[in-house]
Amino acid sequence: MSDRKSNRLILPGLIAVTLVAASAVYLLRPSESVASQALDKAQSTSKLQSLAELDGKAPTNRKLDVQTWTTAEGAKVLFVEAHELPMFDVRILFAAGSSQDGNVPGLALMTNAMLNEGVPGKDVSQIASGFEGLGADFGNGAYRDMALVSLRSLSDSDKRDAALALFDDVIGKPTFPADSLARIKNQILAGFEYQKQNPAKLASIELFKRLYGDHPYAHPSEGTPESVPAITVQQLQAFHAKAYAAGNAVIAVVGDLTRAEAEAMTAKVSAALPKGPALAKIAQPTEPKAGLSRIEFPSKQTHLLFAQLGIDRADPDYAALSLGNQILGGGGFGTRLMSEVREKRGLTYGVYSGFSPMQVRGPFMINLQTRAEMSGGTLRLVEDVVADYLKTGPTQKELDDAKRELAGSFPLSTASNADIVGQLGAMGFYNLPLSYLEDFMKQSQALTVEQVKAAMNKHLSADKMVIVTAGPTIAQKPLPPPTDKPAEQPLGVPEH
Amino acid sequence: MSDRKSNRLILPGLIAVTLVAASAVYLLRPSESVASQALDKAQSTSKLQSLAELDGKAPTNRKLDVQTWTTAEGAKVLFVEAHELPMFDVRILFAAGSSQDGNVPGLALMTNAMLNEGVPGKDVSQIASGFEGLGADFGNGAYRDMALVSLRSLSDSDKRDAALALFDDVIGKPTFPADSLARIKNQILAGFEYQKQNPAKLASIELFKRLYGDHPYAHPSEGTPESVPAITVQQLQAFHAKAYAAGNAVIAVVGDLTRAEAEAMTAKVSAALPKGPALAKIAQPTEPKAGLSRIEFPSKQTHLLFAQLGIDRADPDYAALSLGNQILGGGGFGTRLMSEVREKRGLTYGVYSGFSPMQVRGPFMINLQTRAEMSGGTLRLVEDVVADYLKTGPTQKELDDAKRELAGSFPLSTASNADIVGQLGAMGFYNLPLSYLEDFMKQSQALTVEQVKAAMNKHLSADKMVIVTAGPTIAQKPLPPPTDKPAEQPLGVPEH
Repeated sequence: MSDRKSNRLILPGLIAVTLVAASAVYLLRPSESVASQALDKAQSTSKLQSLAELDGKAPTNRKLDVQTWTTAEGAKVLFVEAHELPMFDVRILFAAGSSQDGNVPGLALMTNAMLNEGVPGKDVSQIASGFEGLGADFGNGAYRDMALVSLRSLSDSDKRDAALALFDDVIGKPTFPADSLARIKNQILAGFEYQKQNPAKLASIELFKRLYGDHPYAHPSEGTPESVPAITVQQLQAFHAKAYAAGNAVIAVVGDLTRAEAEAMTAKVSAALPKGPALAKIAQPTEPKAGLSRIEFPSKQTHLLFAQLGIDRADPDYAALSLGNQILGGGGFGTRLMSEVREKRGLTYGVYSGFSPMQVRGPFMINLQTRAEMSGGTLRLVEDVVADYLKTGPTQKELDDAKRELAGSFPLSTASNADIVGQLGAMGFYNLPLSYLEDFMKQSQALTVEQVKAAMNKHLSADKMVIVTAGPTIAQKPLPPPTDKPAEQPLGVPEH
Repeated sequence: MSDRKSNRLILPGLIAVTLVAASAVYLLRPSESVASQALDKAQSTSKLQSLAELDGKAPTNRKLDVQTWTTAEGAKVLFVEAHELPMFDVRILFAAGSSQDGNVPGLALMTNAMLNEGVPGKDVSQIASGFEGLGADFGNGAYRDMALVSLRSLSDSDKRDAALALFDDVIGKPTFPADSLARIKNQILAGFEYQKQNPAKLASIELFKRLYGDHPYAHPSEGTPESVPAITVQQLQAFHAKAYAAGNAVIAVVGDLTRAEAEAMTAKVSAALPKGPALAKIAQPTEPKAGLSRIEFPSKQTHLLFAQLGIDRADPDYAALSLGNQILGGGGFGTRLMSEVREKRGLTYGVYSGFSPMQVRGPFMINLQTRAEMSGGTLRLVEDVVADYLKTGPTQKELDDAKRELAGSFPLSTASNADIVGQLGAMGFYNLPLSYLEDFMKQSQALTVEQVKAAMNKHLSADKMVIVTAGPTIAQKPLPPPTDKPAEQPLGVPEH
């Protein structure tokens, strides 16, 4: 039951179903960067279902002693020594996400997906069983800002050296075998087929197109049905040579290694990569045109997506916006949106809002689904909740609760080596100070109601929403009146 | 980026999309048992994209020295000592799959999913960070025949003892907290909502209903929109006490442990479980009524599923059927079905067939999707290919190729500890002899064309197919004539 097998092999039986599901996940993967998510996790209170969970249970924070240096080839390294377990984690982030696709949508993701399909003398099977036989886990992924590779291995030197030698081959000498390319293209194309039946995905694709226009964030990381079949091995090789260059990389390392061992290891990893500088930064997107697009989709439910351009990672207002969003719709239960749309009116299972700060301005988004005949009313209700929140700002109690939740969830951000390596990678990739997590916490805890309100109004406007819906055109019903006694089940359920 | 987080937490941003995708996978998971799949993997040639891959690359088989004993409480243990890595894998299989749901569909899956949500003194977060902090991986899952829990841990005694202590609590003393139950129910219900837009899933649910009627395999493991909301903590406790009893368990262990250590460990694990005997075996299903059911679904593609009752794990014809199916549609490229439906006519991305031998007769299934206006012709084409294959049997060359592929893929079945523990679990659960894998290989290699043909005809009939389609009712077009020069892309693609 190794992942290698379930991802790679065609099994007899109910295979097509599995393939479809796997593709779906691949393609539905949130569009923001992984590191961005890692930081969001750290800062979000959404780990907690309720305040009650906090009581006396928060693990103690691990104080991060982050060491940093640059390799001879120009890769930035961040390292935390941790000897509790005889293991280490390494993660390399390249500015090699789909925003670097140029005029070949899907190129970055395909390059990343092909890294472990072949190296000199080894095919995909031998690479996978090589890592498995050493008890090591290899991982990779590509998003809008970045592509990444990761390795978790035992730190004992015989296991470590062998795992790193294979890892270095995978990141530095991929052979991009033609049969693997054909297979992966087929999987992605099957995913596109599947998307046609997925209104949430269709709406998301349209939203990014509307929000980003000609900007490199506009197209999906997985490419398009037109672009994917045409991608060649030569294009993959050229993209690898340019975008996986040492100068375009950030290496994060956490675990059972001394500083000297970490230096030797990262020197070797860096030397294994193609030589070259960092890629040029992408430009900021321009403001989109607000308004509504409808996607006609036969279903009983309608998906609603609302978005505006948000902020980039460097924005000084992030702490204020993060707390502000937490209260609006970022925190799961008890938020303004959840309370008005779900709890008082039973219109949805869940409604969420969030900023995705990226290299340049990432989206602020709200999403939910509701019964088709209530979708018009629900859309206006969401708009009203946002407008009202921007007008009045949070209450002191809401802010206090949000700060308390944040303080409670913060220690979890460095609870395990895997968490820490994610944090380090994001800090390095987005050029954040090493004190970023502590700074963020201090800033957040000092914020006033007025400051949060001002930041939300500076970055969001009730009348600037880009909205996409996906659902059927049917007669609309008025919303039920709000109630203080929430229905046991949202309205959507009894129809099954 | 630990799994714990991505599964459990609500993130800001594109959350709903992720949730939907995650639920989809959970619910789309193939219906056969994991162990059954593990064995199928070992026996299938589908790991290989082509015969060319075999040349000189097959890893050598690990000779399995399987030791076996029974614990004081009645759990069967299978153990393989392997000191290459300082780790071990343990997997416990309970006859606690959805075929034990009784009149509460979803009970078995929910019980399994709730095991790691709470133990005395620890909530779900603390359990997850407990395992993570020890470098250990916990896993669980529930299917039609079985429910399972697994642990991979470092074998060093301080890490091992702590990881096992937590593991023992999770399997032996789950507290089934009410807030977790509400959350998991919500996820499953959201998944049902999502299923309504998934024609492959709708077709699969209908097929199992048609194939199994009143039998416990008929309903989906995840339950139904009616049954799930009503499941109570008391029902979970009662199911756990009965179905997770030591006498109903098989414990598979592989790794860096001595026999004495493995005995001590499994004794402790077994003692941690509720006391009790094995559950009664379920009855064999009765023959279903052949024929076609149509599910009306708005789409450009139509899903086609064909099925008959196949065999149980104990059936002596399994080797012959497995090879026979390999040639018909089990092996990916180059099978009869793939050649006729995809390669010669470009009607689909893929078409697959397979037996899923289970505790009692599992399904034989064929599935594919095709353009809606070709679905009628494609359905008849698949029927014709099956009928023709049953009539003529495989050619000598097809059989020789299939045997050669099988021999090449066989060593992979024991390539890693994770593979081995999967094999051991299945052998124990299905009461297979310890020489099962070798026996299967010898049997397979000795089979003649006539024997394979006879076995296929004994268990399958061209006129007994239960067929379910999901797609739109539209005017049908005739199929294109077959060609020897396959189209670059299946017909479905250019429409995007």
